[in-house]
Amino acid sequence: MNDGTEEEGGGRRGRRGRGGGGAAARRAARRGGGLEQLKFIERRIPAYEILSEDGLALIEDNAETVLQEVGIEFRSDAEALALWRQAGAEVDGERVRFPRGLCRKLIETAPARFTQHARNPERSVEIGGANTVFAPVYGPPFAHDLEGGRRYATIEDFRNFVKLAYMTPALHHSGGTVCEPVDLPVNKRHLDMVYSHIRYSDKPFMGSVTAPERAEDSVAMARLVFGDGFVDENCVLISLINANSPMVWDETMLGALKAYARAGQATLITPFILAGAMAPVTVAGTLTQTLAEAMAGMAFAQLVRPGAPVVFGSFASSISMQSGAPTFGTPEPALVLFGAAQLARRLGVPFRSGGSLCASKLPDAQAAYESAQTLLPALLAGVNFMLHGAGWLEGGLVSSYEKFVMDADQLGMMQTLAGGYDLSENGQAMDAIREVGPGSHYLGCAHTRANFETAFYRSAIADNNSFEQWEAEGGLDAAQRAHGLWKQTLAAHAEHAPELDPGIDEALQEFMTKKKDSMPDAFT
Amino acid sequence: MNDGTEEEGGGRRGRRGRGGGGAAARRAARRGGGLEQLKFIERRIPAYEILSEDGLALIEDNAETVLQEVGIEFRSDAEALALWRQAGAEVDGERVRFPRGLCRKLIETAPARFTQHARNPERSVEIGGANTVFAPVYGPPFAHDLEGGRRYATIEDFRNFVKLAYMTPALHHSGGTVCEPVDLPVNKRHLDMVYSHIRYSDKPFMGSVTAPERAEDSVAMARLVFGDGFVDENCVLISLINANSPMVWDETMLGALKAYARAGQATLITPFILAGAMAPVTVAGTLTQTLAEAMAGMAFAQLVRPGAPVVFGSFASSISMQSGAPTFGTPEPALVLFGAAQLARRLGVPFRSGGSLCASKLPDAQAAYESAQTLLPALLAGVNFMLHGAGWLEGGLVSSYEKFVMDADQLGMMQTLAGGYDLSENGQAMDAIREVGPGSHYLGCAHTRANFETAFYRSAIADNNSFEQWEAEGGLDAAQRAHGLWKQTLAAHAEHAPELDPGIDEALQEFMTKKKDSMPDAFT
Repeated sequence: MNDGTEEEGGGRRGRRGRGGGGAAARRAARRGGGLEQLKFIERRIPAYEILSEDGLALIEDNAETVLQEVGIEFRSDAEALALWRQAGAEVDGERVRFPRGLCRKLIETAPARFTQHARNPERSVEIGGANTVFAPVYGPPFAHDLEGGRRYATIEDFRNFVKLAYMTPALHHSGGTVCEPVDLPVNKRHLDMVYSHIRYSDKPFMGSVTAPERAEDSVAMARLVFGDGFVDENCVLISLINANSPMVWDETMLGALKAYARAGQATLITPFILAGAMAPVTVAGTLTQTLAEAMAGMAFAQLVRPGAPVVFGSFASSISMQSGAPTFGTPEPALVLFGAAQLARRLGVPFRSGGSLCASKLPDAQAAYESAQTLLPALLAGVNFMLHGAGWLEGGLVSSYEKFVMDADQLGMMQTLAGGYDLSENGQAMDAIREVGPGSHYLGCAHTRANFETAFYRSAIADNNSFEQWEAEGGLDAAQRAHGLWKQTLAAHAEHAPELDPGIDEALQEFMTKKKDSMPDAFT
Repeated sequence: MNDGTEEEGGGRRGRRGRGGGGAAARRAARRGGGLEQLKFIERRIPAYEILSEDGLALIEDNAETVLQEVGIEFRSDAEALALWRQAGAEVDGERVRFPRGLCRKLIETAPARFTQHARNPERSVEIGGANTVFAPVYGPPFAHDLEGGRRYATIEDFRNFVKLAYMTPALHHSGGTVCEPVDLPVNKRHLDMVYSHIRYSDKPFMGSVTAPERAEDSVAMARLVFGDGFVDENCVLISLINANSPMVWDETMLGALKAYARAGQATLITPFILAGAMAPVTVAGTLTQTLAEAMAGMAFAQLVRPGAPVVFGSFASSISMQSGAPTFGTPEPALVLFGAAQLARRLGVPFRSGGSLCASKLPDAQAAYESAQTLLPALLAGVNFMLHGAGWLEGGLVSSYEKFVMDADQLGMMQTLAGGYDLSENGQAMDAIREVGPGSHYLGCAHTRANFETAFYRSAIADNNSFEQWEAEGGLDAAQRAHGLWKQTLAAHAEHAPELDPGIDEALQEFMTKKKDSMPDAFT
C-alpha cells in the first residue's frame, strides 16, 4: 500500500519469519514459554441479559429515528459523503440522513467474529462470539507511580507498560497507546509506539489513528512483520475510531477508519460519551445515541470495504451535574454497558466496552471500587474486546504502574469467573464429602490434596495474612505492595522477552528511520 | 412466652406506642423525616441466572444424596433428634439421615416472602421475591478507624455503628452485632445491643443467638416495643443461625433457632463456609454441601413451627491453600453465590448472602476490589437479605468506620442499578437528541435542565475534581475523605435521631436492669 519496496522486502522477511506457522514464531513462543500466558477467554457463563426485548426494540426503533430524522455529520470528507449518497442516504451539506434500516442492512457484511493475528500465533485472539479479549489502558498523556508521582509520560513509560502487559497472563492483547509518549514528536511517535509493541511483546496490538498516514504507517510496519500476502488476507491490527459525539464522525477518524478498512484491518467504532454532555442525561437516551452513531460508523466501514472487520464500541460514562467532571463506576454507565452489549449481539457484530475505569487520582479505594464496578459488568455483559483493562487512572489522563498490576490481578479473577462451573465428577466432590463427613475438615482429605495446586484463584496483590503478620511485614496497603510487584514484574521482562527475527527488526528500524528523516519534528 | 408480667406490661405500652399504625411511630417518622431514607429495593432488573438447569438439578440431586447417605449432625439436642425421628428421618446417635425429598417437602410450609416489621412502619422490609434488603456488618470483635487504629470494640462503637446505619439511606436494616461490645459482660451485652438498635434507630433489627435465653430476651424486648399480640402474629426479628460446617448444627444455634421459630420470628439459616476447610475445594462441592446443610436447618425450623419464616443463607469464601487464611472477593465464592441464589429460588424461600467482604486490614484498594467483587454479584444474583453490606474489614474481624461510609456509598449505587431502565418518554430523551443535534452539547438543553437534580448517582466519597483542585484540597485518598464523612454523619445523628416512646424506653430499661441484676457478670 505505502512504500512498495520496503514492504516487498519486509514481506519476504515476514514470510520467512512467520510462514506457515513460522520457525521464528515457534522460537518466540518457546522463548516466552517460561512465562505462563492465558489464552483469550472463551466464556462458559451466559451473558447477563438485563434489558427487556421490548426495551431493546424501542431503543433500536429510536436509533433508526435519529439516523433518519436527525442524521449524522461526516465532516470534511467528500469521499464519505459521496459513498453515502451512492448508498441511498440523503446528504445535506455534511449531514447524512439514513433511510430506516439502511445502516443495519449494510452492517450485515461485517463478520460476526474474526481472528486478530499476533506475530506469535499462540497469542492470536478471536474477537466475537462468546470470547473476551483483555487489553490495557489506552491514551493517557501522564504516567504515575508511588515513587515518581504524576508526570508527563515518555517513550520509556510506553515501553514499560508494553512490557508489563506482555508479562500479564490475563492481558491477551498489547493494546495501543498504553500511554502517550509526549517526549517524542507528535508526527513520529506512532512509529516508536508500533515498534515497541512488536519488539517487546508478541501479543496482538493496535495501530495509530491520529492521522490517515500514521494509520498507513501502522499497516506498513505490520506488513514488515507478517508479510504482504498475509496482511492482505488477514486481520493483524485493530484500531480505535472514536465518534465525536454527539453525532459527528470527524475528518481524522474517518481518514484512519478508511485506511484500516481498505487494508482489511479491524476498527473499534466507538461513540465516546460522557452522558449529560455528549448525550442525554438518561440511560435509554445514551443507548439510543450510541447505537445510532455506532451503526453509522460501522455501516460506513462496510461501504469502504464490505467485510472489513468492525467492532461495536461503547465508551459511556456520566458527568457530575455539579461540576461537569466525568465520573466512573457509577450505576448509570453500567446500565448503558449491559444494554449496548445486547444491542451489539442483535446486530451480529462483536462488542467493545468496559475496562478498569476510575476518576481517582490515586490507586486507592475509590479507584478500586470504580474499576470493579465497570470491570465486572463488562465481563458479565459479554464484552468481546475490553480496552482499558489495566492501568487506567484519573479519568484516563494517567497510566498508573501500581494500578496496572492491581487491575491485572482482577483480570485474572475475571478469567476464572468466566470459566463457570466445573460439574465433572472431580468438581462435584462427592467423594470428599463422603470421606470427611460431619464435624471434621477438608484440609487433608484426598480430594483436597489432589486439587491443592489449582483450587482457588491466587491473588498477587491481596494480603490475607493475620493482622500481626501483616503488621510485622510493614503494614503496607495494596498500592504499596503493588509498587514492589510492578518493579519486580518489569525487571523479569528481560528474561522472558520474546524473540524478534533480526531481519524483521532491521526492516522496521530502516522503515522508521526513513520516515523520521522525511519530515521535520512536530510537537502539536 | 418468657416472663409473663414483663411482657404484659410491655405489651400494653407497646400497643399504646404503636397501635394500628401508631401515633408514636408517625411522630418518629416525622422526627426522622429530615433524613432521606430509601425503601428496601424492589429489583427491576432480572436475577443473573448463571448455573444451567442441568447443573442445578445435579447439585440438588447430590445434596439429597448427602442428606440421605452422609446425614447431618444435630448436636446435644434430644428434642431435635426426637422431632426428626417423628418426621421420618433415620437417627443414629446424633447423626440424622433424611429420606430423599423429606427436607424439601418440609420446607414447603416456609413462606416465600414475609414482612419484617420495624417500629417505624415506613422502615418495615419485605424479605423475598424481587426485593433486596441491605444490612450492615455483623460480628467483628474489633473496631478500626484511621485515627484510633485497630482496637477491641466497645458498646460506644456499637452505638456509633447503629447510628451510622440509621443515617445511611441505602441501609434498610439496622443489623445485629454491628460490632461485639467486648467491654460488656458476655452474658448481658445482648441486652444493650438490642436496646441500642431500638433506641438509636427505627429500622428493623436482629436478635441475639449466643444462647437460647438471650434469644428469648430479644423476643421479650421486641414485645415491649411492638406489643404481645403483634409479635405473636408478625415477624419483628430476624436472627442469624450459622451451621457449624461441615454438616453440623450445634446446641447453641439449635437453641436460638428453636426460640425464634417458636416465637414465629425469622431466622437466616446459614452454612458458614470457608471452602477448602469446611467444604470441598470446588464450587460445585461447596454448593452441594451448602444446600444440604441449609435444607436440613430450614426443614428443622418448620418442624419446630410450620410456617416460621426462614431464609436460605450462604456465606461462602475460600481459603489460601498456602496459608489456610480466608480470602475474599475471589471468583470462586462469586460462583457459589450466584448458584446458591438460584437453588434458593427453586426451593421457594428467600435468600441471604453477599456483603462488602474483604480480607484487607485497611480501607484501601484491596478492600474495595474485594468488596465490590462480592457486592455486585450479590445484587445481580438476586439476594433478598444482604448482611455485611457496610463496614466489614479484615475477614470480618473488624468493623471499620471509614469502610462503613465507603460501602454505604456503594450500596446507594447498587440501589440505583437495581432500578433498571427508565423507558418512559423522558427516559428515551428523543426530544433532547432532536434539540441538540450533531456537534453541539447537552449541558443546557431543556431535557438536561429538567432532569438536572436526579440524573446520575451522586457519590459521597468519590473525588471527580481536576488533579489540581484535588491537590489543592489536600490530595486526600478515599479513606481519608471517608474519615471526615463518618464523623460528620455520626454528629448529624443527634438532630435526626428517631423518637422513642418514653413508656417503652422505661419498660426496656426496667427489663434490662432486672435481667442484669439476676446474674453475675460473665466474661467468657
